[in-house]
Amino acid sequence: MEGVDHLADERNKAEFDVEVMKIVWAGSRHAFEVSDRIARLVASDPVFEKSNRARLSRKELFKSTLRKCAHAFKRIIELRLTEEEAGRLRHFIDQPAYVDLHWGMFVPAIKGQGTEEQQKKWLSLANKMQIIGCYAQTELGHGSNVQGLETTATFDPKTDEFVIHTPTQTASKWWPGGLGKVSTHAVVYARLITNGKDYGIHGFIVQLRSLEDHSPLPNITVGDIGTKMGNGAYNSMDNGFLMFDHVRIPRDQMLMRLSKVTRDGKYVPSDVPKQLVYGTMVYVRQAIVADASIALSRAVCIATRYSAVRRQFGAHNGGIETQVIDYKTQQNRLFPLLASAYAFRFVGEWLKWLYTDVTERLAASDFATLPEAHACTAGLKSLTTTATADAIEECRKLCGGHGYLWCSGLPELFAVYVPACTYEGDNVVLQLQVARFLMKTVAQLGSGKVPVGTTAYMGRAAHLLQCRSGVQKAEDWLNPDAVLEAFEARALRMAVTCAKNLSKFENQEQGFQELLADLVEAAIAHCQLIVVSKFIAKLEQDIGGKGVKKQLNNLCYIYALYLLHKHLGDFLSTNSITPKQASLANDQLRSLYSQVRPNAVALVDAFNYTDHYLNSVLGRYDGNVYPKLFEEAWKDPLNDSVVPDGYHEYLRPVLKQQLRTARL
Amino acid sequence: MEGVDHLADERNKAEFDVEVMKIVWAGSRHAFEVSDRIARLVASDPVFEKSNRARLSRKELFKSTLRKCAHAFKRIIELRLTEEEAGRLRHFIDQPAYVDLHWGMFVPAIKGQGTEEQQKKWLSLANKMQIIGCYAQTELGHGSNVQGLETTATFDPKTDEFVIHTPTQTASKWWPGGLGKVSTHAVVYARLITNGKDYGIHGFIVQLRSLEDHSPLPNITVGDIGTKMGNGAYNSMDNGFLMFDHVRIPRDQMLMRLSKVTRDGKYVPSDVPKQLVYGTMVYVRQAIVADASIALSRAVCIATRYSAVRRQFGAHNGGIETQVIDYKTQQNRLFPLLASAYAFRFVGEWLKWLYTDVTERLAASDFATLPEAHACTAGLKSLTTTATADAIEECRKLCGGHGYLWCSGLPELFAVYVPACTYEGDNVVLQLQVARFLMKTVAQLGSGKVPVGTTAYMGRAAHLLQCRSGVQKAEDWLNPDAVLEAFEARALRMAVTCAKNLSKFENQEQGFQELLADLVEAAIAHCQLIVVSKFIAKLEQDIGGKGVKKQLNNLCYIYALYLLHKHLGDFLSTNSITPKQASLANDQLRSLYSQVRPNAVALVDAFNYTDHYLNSVLGRYDGNVYPKLFEEAWKDPLNDSVVPDGYHEYLRPVLKQQLRTARL
Repeated sequence: MEGVDHLADERNKAEFDVEVMKIVWAGSRHAFEVSDRIARLVASDPVFEKSNRARLSRKELFKSTLRKCAHAFKRIIELRLTEEEAGRLRHFIDQPAYVDLHWGMFVPAIKGQGTEEQQKKWLSLANKMQIIGCYAQTELGHGSNVQGLETTATFDPKTDEFVIHTPTQTASKWWPGGLGKVSTHAVVYARLITNGKDYGIHGFIVQLRSLEDHSPLPNITVGDIGTKMGNGAYNSMDNGFLMFDHVRIPRDQMLMRLSKVTRDGKYVPSDVPKQLVYGTMVYVRQAIVADASIALSRAVCIATRYSAVRRQFGAHNGGIETQVIDYKTQQNRLFPLLASAYAFRFVGEWLKWLYTDVTERLAASDFATLPEAHACTAGLKSLTTTATADAIEECRKLCGGHGYLWCSGLPELFAVYVPACTYEGDNVVLQLQVARFLMKTVAQLGSGKVPVGTTAYMGRAAHLLQCRSGVQKAEDWLNPDAVLEAFEARALRMAVTCAKNLSKFENQEQGFQELLADLVEAAIAHCQLIVVSKFIAKLEQDIGGKGVKKQLNNLCYIYALYLLHKHLGDFLSTNSITPKQASLANDQLRSLYSQVRPNAVALVDAFNYTDHYLNSVLGRYDGNVYPKLFEEAWKDPLNDSVVPDGYHEYLRPVLKQQLRTARL
Repeated sequence: MEGVDHLADERNKAEFDVEVMKIVWAGSRHAFEVSDRIARLVASDPVFEKSNRARLSRKELFKSTLRKCAHAFKRIIELRLTEEEAGRLRHFIDQPAYVDLHWGMFVPAIKGQGTEEQQKKWLSLANKMQIIGCYAQTELGHGSNVQGLETTATFDPKTDEFVIHTPTQTASKWWPGGLGKVSTHAVVYARLITNGKDYGIHGFIVQLRSLEDHSPLPNITVGDIGTKMGNGAYNSMDNGFLMFDHVRIPRDQMLMRLSKVTRDGKYVPSDVPKQLVYGTMVYVRQAIVADASIALSRAVCIATRYSAVRRQFGAHNGGIETQVIDYKTQQNRLFPLLASAYAFRFVGEWLKWLYTDVTERLAASDFATLPEAHACTAGLKSLTTTATADAIEECRKLCGGHGYLWCSGLPELFAVYVPACTYEGDNVVLQLQVARFLMKTVAQLGSGKVPVGTTAYMGRAAHLLQCRSGVQKAEDWLNPDAVLEAFEARALRMAVTCAKNLSKFENQEQGFQELLADLVEAAIAHCQLIVVSKFIAKLEQDIGGKGVKKQLNNLCYIYALYLLHKHLGDFLSTNSITPKQASLANDQLRSLYSQVRPNAVALVDAFNYTDHYLNSVLGRYDGNVYPKLFEEAWKDPLNDSVVPDGYHEYLRPVLKQQLRTARL
């Protein structure tokens, strides 16, 4: 059966040009070509094999990470890959590793916070990997609240050094990736103390390990924090702990772009605007949103293909059973996730533009749009990562029992993805930041200050507070204006209600604390509106290719109407729509499902994932699932022998009723 | 700090008698005492250690299962434990194992479907574990649809034998626990064929392995299906595959209580009512609901204790930070789950009664209540397992980053629990069974046939279709009648709307398929009503102990009002309540959270879980979390050496820029 495409019928059904959709998904022909080429390169290299990952012990798994990283670096040099290509290579290797933090956090931190001189010195070492660095911020007792960090960096004018110290157990650095076993250096965040005064959190470059024999330097205690969620998954990474016992570093290893300490211990802020930090945040979070669309699309690709392969019930007279993808319950769970993958892809694309825009404005010292951009990226990071984590697990369940097998690819994808809900800002904490921004915006509505960017709709408060949806039949829900107005009315009315309820409290902060749950819901409503509106904006672009725009149109309205149904309580309690209109939206949703059904497999083919990258027996391109499940099963160590290890000690004595004399 | 109770302040705040609550939770003083005694016995026995589980390879983990099972059986014999005590012992060992299937499926299948003679022969062997059995039903290509199984059992009158055969690869048995490496026997489900006619699925006792050397018998291929979700978790179990190549068994190994095949190959149904099968189903599913409350309460216990230990933000002037359990967002996510744990516990208790009731009626050949009991248990299995799986993951997120560590206990609890959503009936398929029953009940409303049991409320359709909620202030939502009426109105109206929409289709089955998603929602509404009503009924019982009933009352209304908010779209679109009343419900919910807050830790103490059973550093009884996190971290194999294995091959060449010559 090798070579047979079991999903050929599905692919023949498609009503659009898949090759064009691949480019739309990738963002550009160039992006598609680079990804396609590098993905194949990784897939064809046996060093990057990963289907055995679940069978490795922690030590073996970690060693395989070291091997893959070294081999990747070697290939990058040999093939003279560009920075973009090198990044894609690391991505498609698809194994969490110290290099992620080295390139993704250590190098950018020096770039963003180091002086030119510091950059020259440290980046030349880091770029060649003569040193390997990590990002040591989080502490055992301090995650979300960076201002609560306890590690101290006390300036000693006698020696012109900082003394880095861990004063309590909860002050131990805990979690940084790459710290446990690999990093030779770290950017350490600590409270800067000079002349007896605490100037708050600053970054310092600290060497952790000898460059000669890799042993930790004196007075540094460092190690791995232990097994994490899942089998394989993030256990390939050496997340670490770190304690300093009065470790001394030269003064010039404080990152001094934003502020510095002089030879005599004076603290001097520079004239570089502090707002630059927000630019970095926007960058990191847009990358997280892009990652969400990737993780989600992987899960959806697996679940969609297997839903087309798998048959269950519905046979008549011994005939063939129904493909599970034909059931409305399956469609009702799966297709909104397929639509979400596309929605997150396009909002991620838009965020990339936003980052460019913010960067240009910062360069021109225009800080006006920053708060809005900051709130919007925080909210979208929260929204997309929460939805993606939930969706991966839902896709696993949509594969029935076999989704529970590691080789389905979904358990590891889930385990490796969920930290995104917590790192770079806990998702609930982030929505509260959005809520604070919304409350401020609502408060200023009468003041003549015009809301900008994604809050622009709030400027039409007068209309949105009283408008009534004009939807009268199911097809009216395919009208972009009708959909947008409903989402805008809902978001604005929820925000205004929160503001009203807040105003009843004498103490605003106490009111905010009391109403946290409502505020989070208002923030989510606002963020969902952003995603819907950016998807609709995408449809207004010039998109060619037979049937491509039609498919995107269907997915856009599936996404919007699915949200409308999921959060129906919001829409109804704010009178943004009526129960009758809600019912029409459901009718339209079912009709859209029928339209997507014949295109479903092609719509996930458009992600252009290799079988290596998916690493899923259920999501194989050729749909040849069942024989491959057997192949995987036979590889389990338990099948090395017919009679299991332990039989003679622990099974035979039971069966032979010889327990009394057995040594257990 | 050993011996210090870091949560003593929390425990001192409690406003109720925890010891009495422990008995309420356990169900009776006897149940409490047995559980308490056996849990301590297990916790104090080093063989049952499980905190190292994540560090074992698959083979080591499996061997530890064999050892624990043998040791447990030995202790059961030595201590002359009762059947109840033995069951608790296996439960508290808390490691999925072949014995679960032997005692939970193999033995009951023979009891339920074997003739007296067969029971005598096989149970005497099974009860002493001279044979070990599993339950081989599911096939590689056939899960939910039992009628689609392909394995055949063809009667050969020449030799008076059945020929068991696996005709295709998808017909391979796949998933049965205990099959892969341990079971000597199986109850195999196969299509019975005699005289050329297919009589559908029946059970057969088949020996799989030699009782002398444990090797598989001729023409039997058997093995383990490979790694499953998570680290530790279900990987301690040998879920297996199994293929038969014309394996012959004596005719008397067909389980013949319900029907038999005679010496000359005639198929003869017995006069034992077929409905007995439903009795077994009710039994299995009530056990699953009970398990849901246990898994959920474990997760809630961990998250609640750690939420009281953990502090984040809110410090003023260098003071101590706020306990995260004091944040309304945390309460809003955590307390409904605490309430759900109690709710599921009580509905599980009621299901136990229902099983007794059904059994008595069956004995008296009264089948009138069976369809209702069947629908109700199917729905509650679905509702409670879905909610529990989601809640465990939510509890993990509520623990912040540290919830992602294996030693938090939550990743493994999640991985080991989620199969409950799929086995014994996929949760969506089960809700559709409920929906079919509801549609039938609605259709008969005018006919004079009075709905019974959990559907009794539908008999008051005339009132429920037109009533308006009388809630006028927040406290009105503490009135059981107001709450019940809102839930009844919502459930009935959703069911009636579905029935109306169905009637628009000419082909009823086609309409049902088209409206599957709506039908599932109607079924869920019905099931939530059951849980709420049984919690309210529990409050009407005589419950003593200072403050105990008050706490249960708070939890009951948190559960109900949380559901009301979560499914607000249902309540509003059916006009069961108004937006204003919904807002009042939220106000009441916040007030209830404040009342639960000081009692939260004591409410999870009432579950009476040992630290061994919880296996969570974050959920430790004494709250001494941070030093213990370090202790666990040091045990990781990666910390065996300061310089990691692989440094010389794969790290040093990178750092020393010697990649070109390195052998990778």
